Amino acid sequence: MNNKNSEKTISNAVIRRLPRYFRYLRELIRNDIMRISSRELSEKMNITASQIRQDLNCFGGFGQQGYGYNVKFLYSEISHILGVDSGLSAVIVGIGNMGKALVNNPLFEKRGIKVMGLFDTDPNVIGTNFGELSVLDAKNLSSFCNENSIDIVVLTIPKAAAKNAVDVLCETNIRGIWNFSNAEITLPEDKNIHVENVHLGDSLMALCYEVAQGKANQ
Amino acid sequence: MNNKNSEKTISNAVIRRLPRYFRYLRELIRNDIMRISSRELSEKMNITASQIRQDLNCFGGFGQQGYGYNVKFLYSEISHILGVDSGLSAVIVGIGNMGKALVNNPLFEKRGIKVMGLFDTDPNVIGTNFGELSVLDAKNLSSFCNENSIDIVVLTIPKAAAKNAVDVLCETNIRGIWNFSNAEITLPEDKNIHVENVHLGDSLMALCYEVAQGKANQ
Repeated sequence: MNNKNSEKTISNAVIRRLPRYFRYLRELIRNDIMRISSRELSEKMNITASQIRQDLNCFGGFGQQGYGYNVKFLYSEISHILGVDSGLSAVIVGIGNMGKALVNNPLFEKRGIKVMGLFDTDPNVIGTNFGELSVLDAKNLSSFCNENSIDIVVLTIPKAAAKNAVDVLCETNIRGIWNFSNAEITLPEDKNIHVENVHLGDSLMALCYEVAQGKANQ
Repeated sequence: MNNKNSEKTISNAVIRRLPRYFRYLRELIRNDIMRISSRELSEKMNITASQIRQDLNCFGGFGQQGYGYNVKFLYSEISHILGVDSGLSAVIVGIGNMGKALVNNPLFEKRGIKVMGLFDTDPNVIGTNFGELSVLDAKNLSSFCNENSIDIVVLTIPKAAAKNAVDVLCETNIRGIWNFSNAEITLPEDKNIHVENVHLGDSLMALCYEVAQGKANQ
């Protein structure tokens, strides 16, 4: 299958900025702002207007000279590029504190992702209910993923458990892993699974650096 | 006060990579590896050896030709640069699911940060205990921060509550905000508070993009 985006490669740096555009545009729509210039968007987002034009040109340039951008159109195009309307499905593996924080979070719904299953290994957690979902035994993870054509697995398990979980996931046809486990995940090269790592600790350390520098310079 | 790091400016891109070095070096120490070449570190970290040398040269270049890096020394220098040994203190505001996930997480302890207080506005949450800490009423947040010289405030509150919390924090002498609220935080220019935003949704969207592209190209 081909679509208009599949033939070009968009740089990772641009992809990383797209969700920010998505958030700002959603905010504009909420405030009934239907048209915006790259200069105005630039001031709001703290990115240069030229960078914005360059970024958005990657997808065919949706702006019009003297008019600016049609907010709703741009939002819907970016949603499409980001795969928001692709009907992706997910499961969450590891219903500890972080797993619970994600289960109850509108993150997935807002991006059109359906959370279809929750998994854990702890007998005290298996069978507990979150909304319409009941936590399932992690030993059924691979069969569940295959039977339900799951796209994304969210790994909120301890680092030590990650290797085993990844081995199991390699037997499935999943497409992506959202990895909160702090483990480095290595996949066989023939597996077309994209890993997105969340290292909260790295973010905290970058903050520590700024705070410690500020104190040192006082 | 001056220290050896306070006089130079290190680029944000390097600062963002330092926590990764920190993690890899910690792993090496755990595995009793005490010496590593930039080439070996490069293979492990998937960064070019030349980039590694360049990054580490920013702090005076700790490597030795023909020997490589002394892992423990490098780890301790990077810890110092990142402020891991500066004895920073923090409070967590908002003890919902994400707040709980952070309270129970070794993230802070590993980086030498002492969590000294937990705050919420919900009467059902105020007074509940987490280890040695009892959740306090958020109306006492600013006085607590000032009395205890708190450095970092972790905001795990809903977006709608963020502006009010930030106004309160502007009355304190805190140094940093770790912002999970998804709100854009604007601070008065004379306030020397560094904001580190965590947008989990942006990370999820970057993953969605890769997954949706993979499906489209099938």
